[in-house]
Amino acid sequence: MTSTPIITLTSDFGRASPYVAVMKGVILSINPAACIVDLTHDIRPQDIRHASYILGTAAPYFPPLTIHVCVVDPGVGSERAAICARADPHYFIGPDNGVFTNVFREHMPPNWIRRLTEPSFWRKNPPSDTFHGRDIFAPVAAHLSRGADSARLGPELMEPVLLPMHSAITFGNRWQGEIQFVDDFGNLITNIPASGVTSLPVKVSVGGRSLGVVRWVRTYSEAKAGELVSLFSSDGFFEIAQVKENASTKLNISAGTPVELEWD
Amino acid sequence: MTSTPIITLTSDFGRASPYVAVMKGVILSINPAACIVDLTHDIRPQDIRHASYILGTAAPYFPPLTIHVCVVDPGVGSERAAICARADPHYFIGPDNGVFTNVFREHMPPNWIRRLTEPSFWRKNPPSDTFHGRDIFAPVAAHLSRGADSARLGPELMEPVLLPMHSAITFGNRWQGEIQFVDDFGNLITNIPASGVTSLPVKVSVGGRSLGVVRWVRTYSEAKAGELVSLFSSDGFFEIAQVKENASTKLNISAGTPVELEWD
Amino acid sequence: MTSTPIITLTSDFGRASPYVAVMKGVILSINPAACIVDLTHDIRPQDIRHASYILGTAAPYFPPLTIHVCVVDPGVGSERAAICARADPHYFIGPDNGVFTNVFREHMPPNWIRRLTEPSFWRKNPPSDTFHGRDIFAPVAAHLSRGADSARLGPELMEPVLLPMHSAITFGNRWQGEIQFVDDFGNLITNIPASGVTSLPVKVSVGGRSLGVVRWVRTYSEAKAGELVSLFSSDGFFEIAQVKENASTKLNISAGTPVELEWD
Repeated sequence: MTSTPIITLTSDFGRASPYVAVMKGVILSINPAACIVDLTHDIRPQDIRHASYILGTAAPYFPPLTIHVCVVDPGVGSERAAICARADPHYFIGPDNGVFTNVFREHMPPNWIRRLTEPSFWRKNPPSDTFHGRDIFAPVAAHLSRGADSARLGPELMEPVLLPMHSAITFGNRWQGEIQFVDDFGNLITNIPASGVTSLPVKVSVGGRSLGVVRWVRTYSEAKAGELVSLFSSDGFFEIAQVKENASTKLNISAGTPVELEWD
Repeated sequence: MTSTPIITLTSDFGRASPYVAVMKGVILSINPAACIVDLTHDIRPQDIRHASYILGTAAPYFPPLTIHVCVVDPGVGSERAAICARADPHYFIGPDNGVFTNVFREHMPPNWIRRLTEPSFWRKNPPSDTFHGRDIFAPVAAHLSRGADSARLGPELMEPVLLPMHSAITFGNRWQGEIQFVDDFGNLITNIPASGVTSLPVKVSVGGRSLGVVRWVRTYSEAKAGELVSLFSSDGFFEIAQVKENASTKLNISAGTPVELEWD
Repeated sequence: MTSTPIITLTSDFGRASPYVAVMKGVILSINPAACIVDLTHDIRPQDIRHASYILGTAAPYFPPLTIHVCVVDPGVGSERAAICARADPHYFIGPDNGVFTNVFREHMPPNWIRRLTEPSFWRKNPPSDTFHGRDIFAPVAAHLSRGADSARLGPELMEPVLLPMHSAITFGNRWQGEIQFVDDFGNLITNIPASGVTSLPVKVSVGGRSLGVVRWVRTYSEAKAGELVSLFSSDGFFEIAQVKENASTKLNISAGTPVELEWD
């Protein structure tokens, strides 16, 4: 494949457990030349939506042929499928539980998806009932990074599991959407596209509660500490922030909360 | 040594201090081709038992000749020895304070152990009294990864410090053991081998308190949210979990708590 | 440049956001051979002083030609300059807001500094108003790591922004300084050089409150758990620690608190 095969890892394993290290060991044992990049291991426990947002945002910036492995897998050991998808120009490996929703929907609909049913690409057979990251996902990624033929991974799967997502919708001078992500600073990133907000500033309601007209700034540095402002996020969405404070905890707002924008 | 020398790092340095970065800089200054892998830097402060469990679990998955460096070192600057051990097929470098107990006991008794007394492998002589990770362990690992002769590291040490470990023991239809690890989800992993639990489900007591017969499941997905269940961990031990909750905080149980299993 | 170009990343992005991963993807897309090392992403939000301390402490340990990228950037999108500095033997890329104060002052005054005004080294033009890490700093670092001519980055800048720093000063048998860093263990590292403390032990006052004569130890292991001691830090500063406890929270002392030492 590429001269430097890149494998990224995303999980909810946290930091004090051995699970991330175990997956790295498994990958390097199969392909010592792999370049392993941690996307994050601080996905909120079993929060498939969080994982989907992170992957959908970060994956497109990686080089062609990067292999993205995601292990946020509350259904491990059940009948949920294990999959590998090719969504040009990348590969995605993980459980078929919706973690790739943002990737498939917004950025790069998959060229193909295969169920991972071929044990010769696994670490052992049968795999553990509780840790497919170690026994299936990591070894499949490592074999793929060494040039394994993806057609041999297993049969095609036509209908992947997708999370129900509320698209933002507009009615003339109004937008309805939701908070799609709260970042580590507590900034509230909506799913309303910046390009659709054609008049500024706007009246903002969050969770049914009016915040009034929220001043729009081009950048945080235009506002005073503590000021509630709106701006366009680096990913091109309408964002609400309290400068040098945590808007999420101050306003008690989390991902999934409905948002409404209105202007005259 | 290998074409891609791998050095893993385990410490209790946390994330906001410069110490991990300093060690990486020291290693890369001696061997820019080293592939450095973080096992974890979130070992609980000075918790040698936690470090020993993580290393014992994760190290075996790495390729032959991997060099594992551990800096959980409350006795730094005292008379405790600094050591390098060869435990086929890996190397282990760190303080002689018990951090390698799980590695030496369970997985791969050491072929040899040497005291690190040869200053030509150190960063400076004398080393700092408070940071042997930077001045001894990291540079020794880097030199070893470049092919330094391990016989020159220092004299052999025959009796490494080992943590007192309660082995799990069985009496017919009963097992006595302890919680050996609480993972980031709060799941309680005992030291009772799954293969020894020959009748299911079993009555469980933890810390002298009976939990009654705890339902056994093959996988988390077979249980309801909030249900207390038992299962076999991915490492082959008897495990107690509260599905989508934190059993450790809910039941107020930590590592070292005695566990008893009984069946009819 | 070097056979293995090394790029380090320092930020306040935390762990659950996609921003760190996005920067890694941008770098690897331009230079797949780059070796990316995380210094830390747990700089306290927008704490320029914290970032400056970490960089000043860790950067000198890296090999020549390492490129250090820092994104602690509360003024992103304002008129603050984006810069690249050569401070032998390293490069530093980030905002001109004082994050490189410790690097420039203490360790290696810069050979030159250039404003990053040349869009052909950016990811896109115009860059985002809120994420120069992705659009300017990461791509400039990646191009530089591939051998781009630094003279083409932009015009020279003569007077970088520097944080006001209180140097420690001495009057005969007294030192006045401040806590310059609190590490993850809660140890208090002053800016008073160990080499200047010529009589031991000393009377210590912190924040105007006397701690009396604090016993000096060569290493933590010489003290009992819970004992308040002083020692010389691994970086050569006078340090106050409470053994196996967190001195910062116990004594309610943070970075910037004045410290005074006195002896007879």
